[in-house]
Amino acid sequence: MNFDNIMFALEIIGTIAFAISGVMVAKEGKMDIFGAIVLGCATAVGGGVIRDLILGKTPPDMFKDPIYVIVAVVTCVMDFIIEKIRIKKGKTDSGYKLNEINNTILNIADSVGLAAFVVVGCQAAIRVGFNDNYLLISFVGVVTGIGGGIFRDMLAGQMPLIMRRRIYAMAAIAGAVIYCFATAYFSEILSAVVSMAVVIIIRFLAIYFKWNLPSF
Amino acid sequence: MNFDNIMFALEIIGTIAFAISGVMVAKEGKMDIFGAIVLGCATAVGGGVIRDLILGKTPPDMFKDPIYVIVAVVTCVMDFIIEKIRIKKGKTDSGYKLNEINNTILNIADSVGLAAFVVVGCQAAIRVGFNDNYLLISFVGVVTGIGGGIFRDMLAGQMPLIMRRRIYAMAAIAGAVIYCFATAYFSEILSAVVSMAVVIIIRFLAIYFKWNLPSF
Amino acid sequence: MNFDNIMFALEIIGTIAFAISGVMVAKEGKMDIFGAIVLGCATAVGGGVIRDLILGKTPPDMFKDPIYVIVAVVTCVMDFIIEKIRIKKGKTDSGYKLNEINNTILNIADSVGLAAFVVVGCQAAIRVGFNDNYLLISFVGVVTGIGGGIFRDMLAGQMPLIMRRRIYAMAAIAGAVIYCFATAYFSEILSAVVSMAVVIIIRFLAIYFKWNLPSF
Repeated sequence: MNFDNIMFALEIIGTIAFAISGVMVAKEGKMDIFGAIVLGCATAVGGGVIRDLILGKTPPDMFKDPIYVIVAVVTCVMDFIIEKIRIKKGKTDSGYKLNEINNTILNIADSVGLAAFVVVGCQAAIRVGFNDNYLLISFVGVVTGIGGGIFRDMLAGQMPLIMRRRIYAMAAIAGAVIYCFATAYFSEILSAVVSMAVVIIIRFLAIYFKWNLPSF
Repeated sequence: MNFDNIMFALEIIGTIAFAISGVMVAKEGKMDIFGAIVLGCATAVGGGVIRDLILGKTPPDMFKDPIYVIVAVVTCVMDFIIEKIRIKKGKTDSGYKLNEINNTILNIADSVGLAAFVVVGCQAAIRVGFNDNYLLISFVGVVTGIGGGIFRDMLAGQMPLIMRRRIYAMAAIAGAVIYCFATAYFSEILSAVVSMAVVIIIRFLAIYFKWNLPSF
Repeated sequence: MNFDNIMFALEIIGTIAFAISGVMVAKEGKMDIFGAIVLGCATAVGGGVIRDLILGKTPPDMFKDPIYVIVAVVTCVMDFIIEKIRIKKGKTDSGYKLNEINNTILNIADSVGLAAFVVVGCQAAIRVGFNDNYLLISFVGVVTGIGGGIFRDMLAGQMPLIMRRRIYAMAAIAGAVIYCFATAYFSEILSAVVSMAVVIIIRFLAIYFKWNLPSF
């Protein structure tokens, strides 16, 4: 099991977590299953599509390797069915314990996914040949990580959550900038590990200490 | 009169119907004539622009052949004037009979346009050379059909209607997938006719029987 | 000091004015400093990014010459701090005189920026080689001028202001169309000066006489 396989596994975890976050927004908006699939897929693969358009990679990667779309669609359909069953059983307000465990699992998966997406995004820019354009590398890294969520919220007609969200975006930015510079001096694997660790640690510290940025 | 001319005529019908739907949204938002033109054009040509960006065709087709933009702008201006006259005459709440006939005509034009846009979108992907990437072909087919409406609603600051709309998107998806596979075995013309028929039939059955997808 | 330097200075003025308008929207939405920076940068460089994607210039110019992003970020941070201090001092409702002067300065800077962005946008299309496609040239000119503001409002989950705004967009369109045709007969400098003058004059006449377009 080499490093590429591990990155792929982390990306799939992220795809599932992001797709579920899309279904949650669809649920709040009382949408049908089609809306849930659109929002789920937009969250899961939207960041990568924006990245590829900026890098001039057409068609975007999601069309070259459909595994991510397939995972996202299957996740959305399964999550939609599970939520429907839970609503029918009137379990939305009970089962706090279970909900809390679910939330923790989702938060971990989402953090891991964010970290993996940021690193994969930076790598995409480097592989296209922009290895000395740090602004571009970090930007597309961040966009790969948080672009899908922004796209989801715009599609749902809401102000993107990220605009008000605890250090979520800052974690992505820190990870992208660190990867960007680390990769100039260290191996790809070491850079990726350090960068992903930073993203995950910042996110968890932020959740734990309820960090917030100064706001109006 | 060959098949290309028929497709062109159907596309123009769709352009007019889509532009009118943009003006309707502008009317609800109390926008000025500029807003009406922007929303009308966004609905009419927006799907094609997104498709071309994904396919890497720059500049998008709307700039190479301005007929669609011209038709859309003229439609918007005429419709804006007509609506203003009707509002002045206080006819918004009367003339039910006329309104119903208008609605039926608009629905037919919109269905025909949706069907034509989906097929044209699939053909664009195939002509660029992606003829064995079924995910890409069907995706850009669907985007050509429904992307303009999504763009219109995002510009108007609303949740895209499609997220809650009767099988509209499903009709587009069915048409795109069918075209995609049919074109591998049958002639372009036969594939196009069957695919468009499916889109139109699904839309009308959905309106007639008030079909809805399962929703939260 | 040649003409290119003057254009660059005008663009920087526009970048600052546009970034401030983004921070204002962030303030209304009670966002944190990250939201302010995102909205400020989206307003300042978003129009150019959309233009470059349409023209097929990847990566977009903002990544090739980071000065605009740097100016935008610095502006956002400084403006955020200034606004925070003013809010703390309870100065939001007092100091009418000062506010009015500020508003006038901002309006002038915004008009100058709009004019410069429109001309730069048209020039970008011409330099890529589309010098006989007037629709494309004027479209990307307008998009460079007003696209950032539309993007800002979509990110903030609001209906784009431009849809209801006094002749703002019309000024951009007039400037772009005039530049487009002027450049076919006159020198680049003369075309730019005339076109920018038209944008600024229309905007000021509109503000002064409170012009509005006919609306629903």
